[in-house]
Amino acid sequence: MTVVPARLFDFIGGAEGPWRVDRIGAVTGDSLPAAARLRVTEAGAGIDVVGAGTAWQLRGITSNERYVERSEKQQLLARQPLLGRPESRCAALIPIRKNAAWWAMTQDERRAIFEAQSRHIAIGLDYLPAVARRLHHCRDLEAPQPFDFLTWFEYAPADAEAFEALVAALRASPEWAFVDREVDLRLSRDA
Amino acid sequence: MTVVPARLFDFIGGAEGPWRVDRIGAVTGDSLPAAARLRVTEAGAGIDVVGAGTAWQLRGITSNERYVERSEKQQLLARQPLLGRPESRCAALIPIRKNAAWWAMTQDERRAIFEAQSRHIAIGLDYLPAVARRLHHCRDLEAPQPFDFLTWFEYAPADAEAFEALVAALRASPEWAFVDREVDLRLSRDA
Repeated sequence: MTVVPARLFDFIGGAEGPWRVDRIGAVTGDSLPAAARLRVTEAGAGIDVVGAGTAWQLRGITSNERYVERSEKQQLLARQPLLGRPESRCAALIPIRKNAAWWAMTQDERRAIFEAQSRHIAIGLDYLPAVARRLHHCRDLEAPQPFDFLTWFEYAPADAEAFEALVAALRASPEWAFVDREVDLRLSRDA
Repeated sequence: MTVVPARLFDFIGGAEGPWRVDRIGAVTGDSLPAAARLRVTEAGAGIDVVGAGTAWQLRGITSNERYVERSEKQQLLARQPLLGRPESRCAALIPIRKNAAWWAMTQDERRAIFEAQSRHIAIGLDYLPAVARRLHHCRDLEAPQPFDFLTWFEYAPADAEAFEALVAALRASPEWAFVDREVDLRLSRDA
């Protein structure tokens, strides 16, 4: 078993897993192959992750924040919930890739689009604590990945409509002009 | 052969390689094992990188800039030289790791220490075009790495004194209070 950071996660679509895949939709660019179930594992946790029935596997790593400033962080810390709440029987996995123009920008240019123009953090704050979230980075892993980010969201069925408003607001923002591939997977699990 | 991004590089200390290791010194924390030669390869370039006589191997990936702003970038672009100049017969490999306090800071806090307090970019600009540089990130690779960054520098023997002034200025800056491991390797090659 290879030792990997505890920050590394695999999202495995296939025949097994606690999450039922309700739909997989391409928002921009190519979709992902169909899969009935999804499991999320800490990579290298000792199980054979590419088992029989695996349709695809996406890998990402949690990392330090790239845009959030201290005043925003204080608001996030005060309001953001943990993953794994029993009432969170809905989830979304939204893999996105940004284009070369995004990655060629300097930090101040990316931050200006991310927050001053797009209010990415402010929009997210509006949906706390209803929506729990974990961001995974894929771009700087050794093995090339099809996406730059995997964002995982969890929420209760009663907040499903609010979640649709959250993703609609982000997709309408100037930041999303730099997204050249996006897939949206919606998932559910039994109580 | 695994496909890897063209941005991924291995620094291999051992018995072979075009660079002669003149010295390896621990600046902060543990040093690296002795090695007579160093080679720098694009990872996955088709050679067996862990060959006989390999003392250690460090891996890093080039990535988008994390702190540089547009006005600084314009100055860098105007002055920074390419690697591989024939007159650059001196090189330095400086692996560093930053502590948990650094990584827990928000973007604005890290940028304030990096540039407003430490003038990291401004100091570097003072030594262009004498010193060519490439920064590699290690922290978000799948396999845990002993360092967070590997910086590679190339310069001519006539600029060796200037290079010492550059590293001394950076090490005296507030940013360096967050460095908890640093090794300094100096290398040379024949004309």
